[in-house]
Amino acid sequence: MAGAVVFDKVVIFGVGLIGGSFALALRTAGVVGHIVGMGRSKEALGRALELGIVDSVGDSIAAALNGASLVLIAAPVAQTEAILASMLPHLEAGTIVTDAGSTKADVAAAARRALGARISQFVPGHPIAGGESNGPDAAVANLYQGKKTVLTPLPENSAIDIARVAGAWTACGAVVRQLEPGEHDKVFAAVSHLPHLLAYALVDDIANKRHAGLLFQYAASGFRDFTRIAASSPEMWRDISLANRDALLGELDAYLAQLIGMRAMLAAGDGAALETVYANAQRARRQWTGAIEAAEASQAPDVTQ
Amino acid sequence: MAGAVVFDKVVIFGVGLIGGSFALALRTAGVVGHIVGMGRSKEALGRALELGIVDSVGDSIAAALNGASLVLIAAPVAQTEAILASMLPHLEAGTIVTDAGSTKADVAAAARRALGARISQFVPGHPIAGGESNGPDAAVANLYQGKKTVLTPLPENSAIDIARVAGAWTACGAVVRQLEPGEHDKVFAAVSHLPHLLAYALVDDIANKRHAGLLFQYAASGFRDFTRIAASSPEMWRDISLANRDALLGELDAYLAQLIGMRAMLAAGDGAALETVYANAQRARRQWTGAIEAAEASQAPDVTQ
Repeated sequence: MAGAVVFDKVVIFGVGLIGGSFALALRTAGVVGHIVGMGRSKEALGRALELGIVDSVGDSIAAALNGASLVLIAAPVAQTEAILASMLPHLEAGTIVTDAGSTKADVAAAARRALGARISQFVPGHPIAGGESNGPDAAVANLYQGKKTVLTPLPENSAIDIARVAGAWTACGAVVRQLEPGEHDKVFAAVSHLPHLLAYALVDDIANKRHAGLLFQYAASGFRDFTRIAASSPEMWRDISLANRDALLGELDAYLAQLIGMRAMLAAGDGAALETVYANAQRARRQWTGAIEAAEASQAPDVTQ
Repeated sequence: MAGAVVFDKVVIFGVGLIGGSFALALRTAGVVGHIVGMGRSKEALGRALELGIVDSVGDSIAAALNGASLVLIAAPVAQTEAILASMLPHLEAGTIVTDAGSTKADVAAAARRALGARISQFVPGHPIAGGESNGPDAAVANLYQGKKTVLTPLPENSAIDIARVAGAWTACGAVVRQLEPGEHDKVFAAVSHLPHLLAYALVDDIANKRHAGLLFQYAASGFRDFTRIAASSPEMWRDISLANRDALLGELDAYLAQLIGMRAMLAAGDGAALETVYANAQRARRQWTGAIEAAEASQAPDVTQ
């Protein structure tokens, strides 16, 4: 990739689907020298080395950070503060740190606590990609291709550091956008965190019914799609729910009000009112998927795979 | 298909995705002589003829029903009563009538009103298959392959008529099950009708927000799957919601109680309680999809395509 930012040494905390795919994508794009894997699971690190996702596994944080250009934290959000605190004593002035957490206001606050005056070196980010599988074996070079990555820079970040983190994600094939951390969290509370909670709620509701076995027998493809996100990690979504509690409560309350309104329409047999809601939803969704398809059709062919 | 029931003449009211696919599947299975298309849309009927879905278009109900072995009503549920009433004067003693409606208690009641003493000739049914597209062009011979079709026989139906309708669906590749009409409606209120209402509710909720444009920009594949059923026909789902109002209200109330409970967990910051719900849902869904995959793996190879 001519003219792209190049990173001599990249350190990745968490070499699963997200971190591993970032490593593979940077390598495929030819913008990285050496990649070091770090993390709590020796097994995952060994597997990442075996799969060629990382070039080495860090013996210590000090050694890993020695001469590092870029660090990606791709571990559960609740671990971000501890990881950053452990990095601080070894963090060189020229190293940029970013993360891949699904919530950003809490991560920014955790980073401020952990890094103090060095906060300018941390540029928070959130790649909007994932999958039902996890671990190094799930990592693929094209996970971020055509997907959005949202950076939520802090006032202390320099424009050049933001641009370098953006450059790394662009090299991975992602489309980089910027939001304020709080704005990010409100947006994702609505379009991601609430739907997850709703899907978990429905499956748990059905699973707890006396005749759950009968119900699951007749659940079909519509149910399968609707509940696909309930296949996600309970621990991860517990952390996200708590980390983004205020925004999620706000979205949940709005949704509860919507459901209670629709319950009244249904109880009154008001077909016209129900149809108005259904038709508005169908139209909005069609507009949205139409825009996605148009964007996909106009995208440059994928050259990184 | 050796030994299968054969139908000399099949009449199909509504030659779209559901009725058209039934016609194509019966023809592919070689169990049908002549197929007559009926319906309100001259355009759809002409297209079905052009595509070879039907052999002819009925000039009148009298002519269509003359010598008919089997009639499938694949029109919106709200039209079932009028269609059956229009058939009654021409309905021969040897003709079996069935339908493909998504609700069954209301259809059974409508059939009783329309057919009176001839009710024994009507065997209600519901193929659990569909798609986002509609009309004759969406019809495919393998739509029902490996899918369930639920028959909800009435006490007046003869075992032989039930077996003949079951035989038609089996010839289409479907797995035939039986439920009581009321039991059917309760099951589908939980696993289909409620999820549709919930998906419509979420998209409408988001579409009505001041910053809807921003929200849709960041909605990703999880949101797309979760809301896929909100692409369905608003008219059809209005009818289903009203036709199955009592069961749907019951399921909606249970779900609202579940959400209100989860809201309290979230407000209290009770991560352990939330995780228990999420983990139970993930486990139940995994068990369910595992059972589906096992069933698919053990299915005979598809020979009708």
